[in-house]
Amino acid sequence: MPIERINPGRRLSQAVRYGDTVYIAGTVADDTSADVKGQTRQILAKIDTVLARLGADKSHLLSATVWLADVAAYDDMNLIWDAWVPEGAAPARACVEAKLAGEEYRVEIAAIAALDRAD
Amino acid sequence: MPIERINPGRRLSQAVRYGDTVYIAGTVADDTSADVKGQTRQILAKIDTVLARLGADKSHLLSATVWLADVAAYDDMNLIWDAWVPEGAAPARACVEAKLAGEEYRVEIAAIAALDRAD
Amino acid sequence: MPIERINPGRRLSQAVRYGDTVYIAGTVADDTSADVKGQTRQILAKIDTVLARLGADKSHLLSATVWLADVAAYDDMNLIWDAWVPEGAAPARACVEAKLAGEEYRVEIAAIAALDRAD
Repeated sequence: MPIERINPGRRLSQAVRYGDTVYIAGTVADDTSADVKGQTRQILAKIDTVLARLGADKSHLLSATVWLADVAAYDDMNLIWDAWVPEGAAPARACVEAKLAGEEYRVEIAAIAALDRAD
Repeated sequence: MPIERINPGRRLSQAVRYGDTVYIAGTVADDTSADVKGQTRQILAKIDTVLARLGADKSHLLSATVWLADVAAYDDMNLIWDAWVPEGAAPARACVEAKLAGEEYRVEIAAIAALDRAD
Repeated sequence: MPIERINPGRRLSQAVRYGDTVYIAGTVADDTSADVKGQTRQILAKIDTVLARLGADKSHLLSATVWLADVAAYDDMNLIWDAWVPEGAAPARACVEAKLAGEEYRVEIAAIAALDRAD
């Protein structure tokens, strides 16, 4: 089975596909002037885009890890998350607090998704 | 291959199966009056239950991530973990400290397991 | 499909293979007198070794999670990481700060890799 990399960089690839499983890198917002809700929105839009590039969508998500720079932002992040997740097709998820690579990042999300499904 | 979700909720599914691999969400204790050992016991019992529902058991675990609200509880958590893990069939594991979604949670565990095996 | 464990211990296995996917445990340095760069070098060498034992190498990495005891060490860790990652074959990666199991550990890395590829 081939390994396919989406936006491979020197440090990391945005996503790596192996067979029917795709691993999406820890994703942060581009416009970090946004608050937690805005950053979450940007991150989820990026995940939508990378999944679309692979012919999939958010209903294909298997698992997600959410890191919050401050877990007090839990409700704000979830407001955007809950509205985004397709009903009945939520991934397994873990959400914990962690200091991220830069103070400007308030949220980071990594995920694993399936590219082929029939449910 | 179908995606099968166990206890799918609005925010997350307790577990998501894809082919022969199952992703178990970050799992916390229900009775948070329990100490680290008690919370760990509850979490591992929940993982046993979800694996049983899929026809598997803890010897099928491939990988686990353990978050401790206070890494000083490392030995207490491991006391329960080590007794629970089947001899010779321990998963790959990482364990780090992280502030969890509520102060009452002292431990959270996510895992990946195989549903079919012959070892 | 069989589950194969590399260096299975009472608490965790260093790596667990299921089909063509291998899960590598959170890996820390043995010589913790080393600084962040030295610890990162040791960890990546251990990952090289376990992948070699399975007939693979670092170009097979799908995903990696890096925990830093102090995210201020981000650049030092990346100096070693960037030089190690094969050009064009970087995994999806997330890197966050977390207090690790002992104060002496400055870096911990877990990974998922493919054992069979054709890219």
